[in-house]
Amino acid sequence: MPSEADRCPSRWGEGDERGSANLISPSSILEAMKLVKSGEVFELGEVLSRDPEVSYINNNRVFNLYTKTTIPQPDTRRSNEELVITELGQIGTQLDGFTHQMYGDSFYNCFKYDDISGRYGFQKLGVEKIGALISRGILIDIAGLKGVDTIDPDYMITVSDLQQALQRQNLEIKEGDAILIHTGWGKHRGRDNTLYGSSSPGIGEEAGQWLAQQHPLLIGADNCCVEFRTDQNRNLNVHAIMLIQHGIYLIENMELAALADAGGGEFLFIAQPLKLKGATGSAVAPLAIR
Amino acid sequence: MPSEADRCPSRWGEGDERGSANLISPSSILEAMKLVKSGEVFELGEVLSRDPEVSYINNNRVFNLYTKTTIPQPDTRRSNEELVITELGQIGTQLDGFTHQMYGDSFYNCFKYDDISGRYGFQKLGVEKIGALISRGILIDIAGLKGVDTIDPDYMITVSDLQQALQRQNLEIKEGDAILIHTGWGKHRGRDNTLYGSSSPGIGEEAGQWLAQQHPLLIGADNCCVEFRTDQNRNLNVHAIMLIQHGIYLIENMELAALADAGGGEFLFIAQPLKLKGATGSAVAPLAIR
Amino acid sequence: MPSEADRCPSRWGEGDERGSANLISPSSILEAMKLVKSGEVFELGEVLSRDPEVSYINNNRVFNLYTKTTIPQPDTRRSNEELVITELGQIGTQLDGFTHQMYGDSFYNCFKYDDISGRYGFQKLGVEKIGALISRGILIDIAGLKGVDTIDPDYMITVSDLQQALQRQNLEIKEGDAILIHTGWGKHRGRDNTLYGSSSPGIGEEAGQWLAQQHPLLIGADNCCVEFRTDQNRNLNVHAIMLIQHGIYLIENMELAALADAGGGEFLFIAQPLKLKGATGSAVAPLAIR
Amino acid sequence: MPSEADRCPSRWGEGDERGSANLISPSSILEAMKLVKSGEVFELGEVLSRDPEVSYINNNRVFNLYTKTTIPQPDTRRSNEELVITELGQIGTQLDGFTHQMYGDSFYNCFKYDDISGRYGFQKLGVEKIGALISRGILIDIAGLKGVDTIDPDYMITVSDLQQALQRQNLEIKEGDAILIHTGWGKHRGRDNTLYGSSSPGIGEEAGQWLAQQHPLLIGADNCCVEFRTDQNRNLNVHAIMLIQHGIYLIENMELAALADAGGGEFLFIAQPLKLKGATGSAVAPLAIR
Repeated sequence: MPSEADRCPSRWGEGDERGSANLISPSSILEAMKLVKSGEVFELGEVLSRDPEVSYINNNRVFNLYTKTTIPQPDTRRSNEELVITELGQIGTQLDGFTHQMYGDSFYNCFKYDDISGRYGFQKLGVEKIGALISRGILIDIAGLKGVDTIDPDYMITVSDLQQALQRQNLEIKEGDAILIHTGWGKHRGRDNTLYGSSSPGIGEEAGQWLAQQHPLLIGADNCCVEFRTDQNRNLNVHAIMLIQHGIYLIENMELAALADAGGGEFLFIAQPLKLKGATGSAVAPLAIR
Repeated sequence: MPSEADRCPSRWGEGDERGSANLISPSSILEAMKLVKSGEVFELGEVLSRDPEVSYINNNRVFNLYTKTTIPQPDTRRSNEELVITELGQIGTQLDGFTHQMYGDSFYNCFKYDDISGRYGFQKLGVEKIGALISRGILIDIAGLKGVDTIDPDYMITVSDLQQALQRQNLEIKEGDAILIHTGWGKHRGRDNTLYGSSSPGIGEEAGQWLAQQHPLLIGADNCCVEFRTDQNRNLNVHAIMLIQHGIYLIENMELAALADAGGGEFLFIAQPLKLKGATGSAVAPLAIR
Repeated sequence: MPSEADRCPSRWGEGDERGSANLISPSSILEAMKLVKSGEVFELGEVLSRDPEVSYINNNRVFNLYTKTTIPQPDTRRSNEELVITELGQIGTQLDGFTHQMYGDSFYNCFKYDDISGRYGFQKLGVEKIGALISRGILIDIAGLKGVDTIDPDYMITVSDLQQALQRQNLEIKEGDAILIHTGWGKHRGRDNTLYGSSSPGIGEEAGQWLAQQHPLLIGADNCCVEFRTDQNRNLNVHAIMLIQHGIYLIENMELAALADAGGGEFLFIAQPLKLKGATGSAVAPLAIR
Repeated sequence: MPSEADRCPSRWGEGDERGSANLISPSSILEAMKLVKSGEVFELGEVLSRDPEVSYINNNRVFNLYTKTTIPQPDTRRSNEELVITELGQIGTQLDGFTHQMYGDSFYNCFKYDDISGRYGFQKLGVEKIGALISRGILIDIAGLKGVDTIDPDYMITVSDLQQALQRQNLEIKEGDAILIHTGWGKHRGRDNTLYGSSSPGIGEEAGQWLAQQHPLLIGADNCCVEFRTDQNRNLNVHAIMLIQHGIYLIENMELAALADAGGGEFLFIAQPLKLKGATGSAVAPLAIR
């Protein structure tokens, strides 16, 4: 991690809480809209369930949903609800916000733990500050590049992999993009969650640094952590690079198979994080529209 | 409520679980996209907080968020999360799905309580079946029609009000629209929640029937219940008409002031409900884009 | 289950909500106190933890404890708490109250589901009505009778087993007793919870009926269900006999090994259920004092 | 707070986690049992409910109980449970354990925050280490001494008050006692919780120091905090004296009116904290038996 003097204030200025979301503007949205040609929608969020045969829940996290039902009465309208108990900012297909990660006691833009933490959410950098994420999206298909269903559980994606995949797909990264990385590993999610959770083949630190230099809006992937993580290597340096150093969002556990099967390419990307005051992130159900 | 023979199967056929969401198609999406002229975005979802000065929480419901923090360590990356406990399908700006309401033991399309209910979510009609709601949106500005900040707490909106407001705004309803009704009542939310929750000035049963006949995708409003509700009248007949009889979604507690101030009109509407398996609805953070 | 005419009102009269707890009186307490000879205390409750190597949590139930910590400040007093989320009436070493079980729509003393149920607890028969359970206790050592560490996972305890064990231990049952049955199966709890939860060797229906005729205060055991339960036989008839028909409490998942090792016999028994309004039971930490 | 060198190790030795609970022995229990003359039981715990007309819940804490019900089926036995969400260690009539309070980063017996804290409970000093609290109990009736229903909301009990009340009641404190202080303030609990929570008339620091020197097992009272607390004075020094410096337990929000009405005096005291691994305390339902 660079020194605080080197990384703060961020490129968005002292006190900024939104990082790369500042890249979104009416004109960038109009540009992104132009990518919609057929109106085809790809749902990139997974179903959330307590059933491990449906959803992947990280170790030590919970997703529990309890029906608050009312008993039917003849010829009477009645209501049902449900109580949900979960790490809502960090569950399922999830957007990582900036309070999710700190280095020492320092967050993105050098907000300090003692100044912003609290029992009931953070006072600064909460996910409610972000707003909707609307941008050009691109899918970098690493599984496609390698000609495999999924890359191996211990494979670390390199800068060269990213560059080759972009070339193969005739794509280039633009500032403000939602960059989605298809590893294929997501095929195990909801099918063999133990396997899925045991590893996260993904980008390494070098690839993360290179991506950050392209100034994307966010990096997403179809694995637990966007980045490479194994039982032996749990340092999550890319989390630190993106969320602390550069103010770039991450989206984990995405459903990218259908989009990859359909050729990926570029598209309109939209994600609507819930406005959970002071939260570290939000479960999301993002879209690609082509 | 019409007899089961009269209302089932629904116009979408026996076994259908998605109701008006069936109106969304690639071509309807392309049409809706054309409404974006300037790229201006309106956030229609409220911030969710346990603080009653920020968010309105219905009586008997909870929204609690607890930071799961880790203690900072020098020169070390660490993570924070949060535990959220809430009626997630029926909290804040919320999409009501079909299991939220039943008449006797019967839901939309005559699914039966004994067949589909369970302790941990419903087996049918869950919000995870809906997918993203993308459509043309229109704002019917009743407060504007009346020339007031907000309509009175005990005012019931009529068919004539809706028709006059549409005429005044030079708008017409099209099949598949997201119809948002600006009452102005939302100005009290987060400012005087006791007042806000004490009443829900909105459409009456007659207006609800008329709207249903236009075959919208959903009806939203800036009050607690979309429809008229007071302490004396809590029958919520419009809930029954929309969610049980016709399979049309509702969105409650919307933030519509900025959109109304900007002239409302027609726009691209997008809402991404969380894919909560078996849930009765979802908190949402919908968008209008013009 | 006998007909309602045959079982209601209960022997404690119409409207009674406390069942066998009515057997406790100042004089019965004084008698029970006389059993204390040495002041030796046996803790009969298990530790409650989310860690499966510590505690057994029934399938589909949760026990989650989250520290609500404050960050230390030099030379300053600060407080910590914890949030607990659990089926508190039915978790760990637990007292089953009368709303835990119903036959059709009918509970102990023929209270009816529609009359007493609610989303936030039952209006009648709640565990807060019981009060402390103070009585003579006896340990019937079935593992000791059989000369084994634990009876087999598919063994159903008979009336004859109970009678032989009592004779071997020179004990007799008295009205109002807390009868604790040592099967030895509890040795697996917290050590191999999968095995422990896979079966509940215990009393069968016949033995349950015989015990009920002795008018005990409660029946406890060192297994999940007091009574015999296997994957093939999950009818829990003894639950119905005790909780619905006779108004006799159950205590499950008890720690009885130390008491059995020390010879069991008779003792002062005390359990203090939490006064959870409308709950079906309570986690407890009961005592035997000799 | 004395220096660490002055207060550690505690009188129970380095590494001790049980503090005054070490005063309980078979002989002390036998002595306490002798105080039972008539078998009369006083329930000293309040009912726990989400209903503010029943129970007092501290600001920022929750007590929510949701019935997990099953739908009745004719001629079939079925089960009900409930989900409880609460600060279980610090709710209702509650035993404060040693991790509830720290001074700087230091707990009872100088255990350090960094060494023992965790997201899911404390590794040391958890309430599961205490065991049942069985001892002689005495009620010091300050309301009785003053001849009032309740002492004033801003009254701080002095050493002299305690000494006069003991003399008036012909009582003396013995080492290992459960000392219960009747202020009368508890009469407001469940009747006017806003008033009840607005103040805690109770012992001041001087009285706390004097009581600690008598080496009691615990101090309990019928107010929120055992000690004096007002909006202007929230230092809770007695918490620090008892829980951090001396290893003496506290019990808050007790029901003492009936016991005081019956003359108080000395009695057998029993409390069974739940064995919540790593928790800061436990809701309890203690007893006085005379």
